[in-house]
Amino acid sequence: MGHFKINQKDLLFILKEQLNWGSLCELDRYKGLNEKTLELLISEAINFAKGVVDPLNEIGEKQGVKWDKGDVLCPDEFKTAFRKYGEDGWTAAVRDEEYGGQGFPHMVRIIVNDIMYGASQSFNMAPSLTHGAAHLIESFGTKELKDIYLRNMYTGIWAGTMCLTEADAGSNLANTQTTAVPEGEHYKICGTKVFISWGNHDLTQNIIHLVLARIEGAPEGVRGISLSVVPKMRVNPDGSVGESNDVFCSGIEKKLGLHASPTAVLNFGNKNECIGYLCGTENMGLAHMFQMMNAARINTGVSGMSIASTAYRNALEYTRSRIQGRDIANRKKGDVAIIDHPDVRRNLLWMKAAVDGMRSLIYTGAMWSDLSQELPEGADKERYSDLVDFMTPIVKAYCSDLGFRVCEIAIQCLGGYGYCKDFPLEQYLRDSKIMSLYEGTNGIQATDLLGRKMSMKNGAPFLAFKAEVEKFYTQNSDHPELGRHIKFLQTTAVKLWELAQNMQARMKEDPLQWASYTYPALVAFGELTVVWRLLDMAVVAMPKSVIKGKANDFYRGKVLAATYFADVTLPHTVATIETCMRNGREILDIDDNAF
Amino acid sequence: MGHFKINQKDLLFILKEQLNWGSLCELDRYKGLNEKTLELLISEAINFAKGVVDPLNEIGEKQGVKWDKGDVLCPDEFKTAFRKYGEDGWTAAVRDEEYGGQGFPHMVRIIVNDIMYGASQSFNMAPSLTHGAAHLIESFGTKELKDIYLRNMYTGIWAGTMCLTEADAGSNLANTQTTAVPEGEHYKICGTKVFISWGNHDLTQNIIHLVLARIEGAPEGVRGISLSVVPKMRVNPDGSVGESNDVFCSGIEKKLGLHASPTAVLNFGNKNECIGYLCGTENMGLAHMFQMMNAARINTGVSGMSIASTAYRNALEYTRSRIQGRDIANRKKGDVAIIDHPDVRRNLLWMKAAVDGMRSLIYTGAMWSDLSQELPEGADKERYSDLVDFMTPIVKAYCSDLGFRVCEIAIQCLGGYGYCKDFPLEQYLRDSKIMSLYEGTNGIQATDLLGRKMSMKNGAPFLAFKAEVEKFYTQNSDHPELGRHIKFLQTTAVKLWELAQNMQARMKEDPLQWASYTYPALVAFGELTVVWRLLDMAVVAMPKSVIKGKANDFYRGKVLAATYFADVTLPHTVATIETCMRNGREILDIDDNAF
Repeated sequence: MGHFKINQKDLLFILKEQLNWGSLCELDRYKGLNEKTLELLISEAINFAKGVVDPLNEIGEKQGVKWDKGDVLCPDEFKTAFRKYGEDGWTAAVRDEEYGGQGFPHMVRIIVNDIMYGASQSFNMAPSLTHGAAHLIESFGTKELKDIYLRNMYTGIWAGTMCLTEADAGSNLANTQTTAVPEGEHYKICGTKVFISWGNHDLTQNIIHLVLARIEGAPEGVRGISLSVVPKMRVNPDGSVGESNDVFCSGIEKKLGLHASPTAVLNFGNKNECIGYLCGTENMGLAHMFQMMNAARINTGVSGMSIASTAYRNALEYTRSRIQGRDIANRKKGDVAIIDHPDVRRNLLWMKAAVDGMRSLIYTGAMWSDLSQELPEGADKERYSDLVDFMTPIVKAYCSDLGFRVCEIAIQCLGGYGYCKDFPLEQYLRDSKIMSLYEGTNGIQATDLLGRKMSMKNGAPFLAFKAEVEKFYTQNSDHPELGRHIKFLQTTAVKLWELAQNMQARMKEDPLQWASYTYPALVAFGELTVVWRLLDMAVVAMPKSVIKGKANDFYRGKVLAATYFADVTLPHTVATIETCMRNGREILDIDDNAF
Repeated sequence: MGHFKINQKDLLFILKEQLNWGSLCELDRYKGLNEKTLELLISEAINFAKGVVDPLNEIGEKQGVKWDKGDVLCPDEFKTAFRKYGEDGWTAAVRDEEYGGQGFPHMVRIIVNDIMYGASQSFNMAPSLTHGAAHLIESFGTKELKDIYLRNMYTGIWAGTMCLTEADAGSNLANTQTTAVPEGEHYKICGTKVFISWGNHDLTQNIIHLVLARIEGAPEGVRGISLSVVPKMRVNPDGSVGESNDVFCSGIEKKLGLHASPTAVLNFGNKNECIGYLCGTENMGLAHMFQMMNAARINTGVSGMSIASTAYRNALEYTRSRIQGRDIANRKKGDVAIIDHPDVRRNLLWMKAAVDGMRSLIYTGAMWSDLSQELPEGADKERYSDLVDFMTPIVKAYCSDLGFRVCEIAIQCLGGYGYCKDFPLEQYLRDSKIMSLYEGTNGIQATDLLGRKMSMKNGAPFLAFKAEVEKFYTQNSDHPELGRHIKFLQTTAVKLWELAQNMQARMKEDPLQWASYTYPALVAFGELTVVWRLLDMAVVAMPKSVIKGKANDFYRGKVLAATYFADVTLPHTVATIETCMRNGREILDIDDNAF
């Protein structure tokens, strides 16, 4: 049982040969580590994913989760796995040792998620949310809150959630209605949250909700929202689980996919007996929550990529074994495996490049994030932080949309069988669709990228990103084999920089027109970034790729995937940029009743 | 109950104002008809779809179909509806009156399917397949076969199927293993067919299978396949249903979508008691079957478009009623409907244009098909037949892929709610995915278009198509308002004609390289065709669009959708053409083990 497929070599090529992640071990926080240890961790994560997480995907899909008078019942196998995930250190691998972490580099969290989400998206959301919630408490909570909650959450004894959305406050959190009324040292919480992933379940005895609410008398809008820690069950002074804290799950959603991940409606304080504890500074809740939200956005892109990765490799395996039709050039006699058909092979090469490119983009961003956290104060640290800010909406939106597209193409490789539940592809397609929708729709990511991220700090995030890409094409445009492709990247990039400037101006002069082209502009950024990462990998792979022998097919694959993807993608990037530059107004001019 | 949405005005604009379909009434076969009657038929079809078919979609999705020891049980509502569909004349609306038809123009079948598939894809496959099977008997069967089967099939008393695929003969029918052994006036049929849509069910007492099989001693490959009529239950000489004909349904598929359409494995002749009757000429089975297969391919494109159409209109309704967020330019106070957000509006306008363009493309092809069948012998008749040949793979592949894309974007308009089963969008996405897979995958359609359809009759189909598009841009490139867009169509078209010629040459010289770029080339043809139809509509709509007043918003919408879609699509068409012209070889050069 289990369908999860991953090629460890692909991950290591990016981490070691492209990014030299071993260099992280020179940082203060990672002094005790070396590249070998890090590499071992990846093997262990893959073993855990295959042995423990992968089987959950099919079990979860078949059994689903059941709501029963407020309780949410999950498959038994999920309970054992959740605990083991915490116990074995995967939940808190990158956290400090003080509260049960192991102090691995922050980017390990992304790599572990890449592996675990690929094995089971539904399941891995639970420990991932638990980590995010606990990390919020670790960053902003009092020592008392940390002492009570962190160790149990990091080791898989308790779980955690993030509670933002309300029925009329989805994309627009300014409308948050949930209230927090002071009562002694704590608050009484009252309100209803919807779309809460893993909002209720029976994996653990307690669930710690991180809830956005409005303290009585707070200013209107997003500047009047505070963050509270709201346990499902109250916790006794000795740390044991006490009585119910008046958090009721009034239903779970029926969804296209993620059937084993309960999406809950939570009523806080139906009986006015729901107690919450302020986490961080009053009215700064949204700012605090952005720590978790940014991580969640990046993890959404990671999910899109990692589902795409296993989808691609499942399709690949099928095309190697499925015999159908003759070779179009009679290279082989009789019927052949469909991987021999050029149109099938086209789909495979495209998927390979898309997955590899996304993974490199994501790991690059993750390494920047690590450096931004662990470098000593200074210009470099700030630059990496700017880079992460700029990359976040690209990772979230572009990898979710491209990941979905990969799942679609993977199905196509199986023909009619791709539509059938005998293969995991149709589930991958359904599970991956959520990625473009939650944690801020991709439309909202585009507004963030072309608006906030272009303008903040006088454009520092954009300029830092631009400098990275420029450095690559300036250094490599004369590359003997890859120069032509790198020059194509360069001319495309120059057009994109112009577009970015142009849209900066438009945002102020004509915000409606600007907003009607933010999404295509984000796509152009996404494509450019993926092609840049692919060509960078090709430069790294080139020396080994020219050495004959089967052992170096892997490196030739990197080069061929990069040049193929660049050549079939960049013309479209240029087309998208043209489209954004044409200043079209049809979207604004059309009357509502003309649709 | 029911979610089906359609705007009749959109259909009539294409049929009356763009295509002048009333002119069909001048043809011999339609002398008794007039435009008014045809128009009335559309209203009636929409009423039937809303009243009878639409409710089935949710019932079917929830109850599904159940396999029980060979029987397949469907919701009761499907039985009543299937019979009524036949009785009310929808199954045989376009057939001759001799066997129960009503003699409406052939293109009415496409329009009715547009409407009915939009209301319930799963259900409408049943009468559509029944029509196709009966029409095969009408075209190729003996008078005896016609007398026994046609009337019952056309009136919804019996159903029909097409049985082509076997486990190892999917895309490659040359491998067909099912045998037909002569025995007196009939044949004994033996073999197993898979993926048979509506292959078994309890809607009707009898099901008439049109089966491809190999008569003992027939040549190998596709030239040794014959077509048989194989009833599920034998038919007594008086026309009543007799004993079982040894056709056993050994299972149905579990699928991503189409949950109410049973996809059956059928065992013919387990006990060697399955009788079939030759339909048409021995060993000409595949050629005969192409009548049904071409219709099925076109209907697949129709399905893609019509699901997209109702998906778009459901998303539109949602965006009009969902209040969330402030107006970005403060045009309105307080929170606004999300249709006011430019990025949402961008998705709506794109979907509107995509749906309108596909519908016009399909109706145009359907009108050509009618003319090719009903014009007197001569050059014109042949030209229309060539046009239909060329258009078939474009309709099938491009409309299925674009239709799926529209469903994806429609979900996006609903945010997280698009992922939930409270709305029909997620079902539309799942149902529509099959369209790129069955009736020949879209990869196979591309080979058909760039291979067979480009080469047959010295390229007559391509040249006929090219002439139609050329006529449009030659006549309209100086259009005062639309000239710029039409000239853009022209320059793109000229590049596409070059590509077509170039690929013609490559097909012979380097078939592997050619085959690795057929699909993108098909996309370029699809995009060009849709833009052409949209701009043609814009030319028609322009005079009324310049008249002020709400009544003419509809026409302004046509113009704006056309110019928007043209400007954001054609740059990508040019990019795709460039991509195909670069003569890339990575797809062929990469080693199998480098993936």
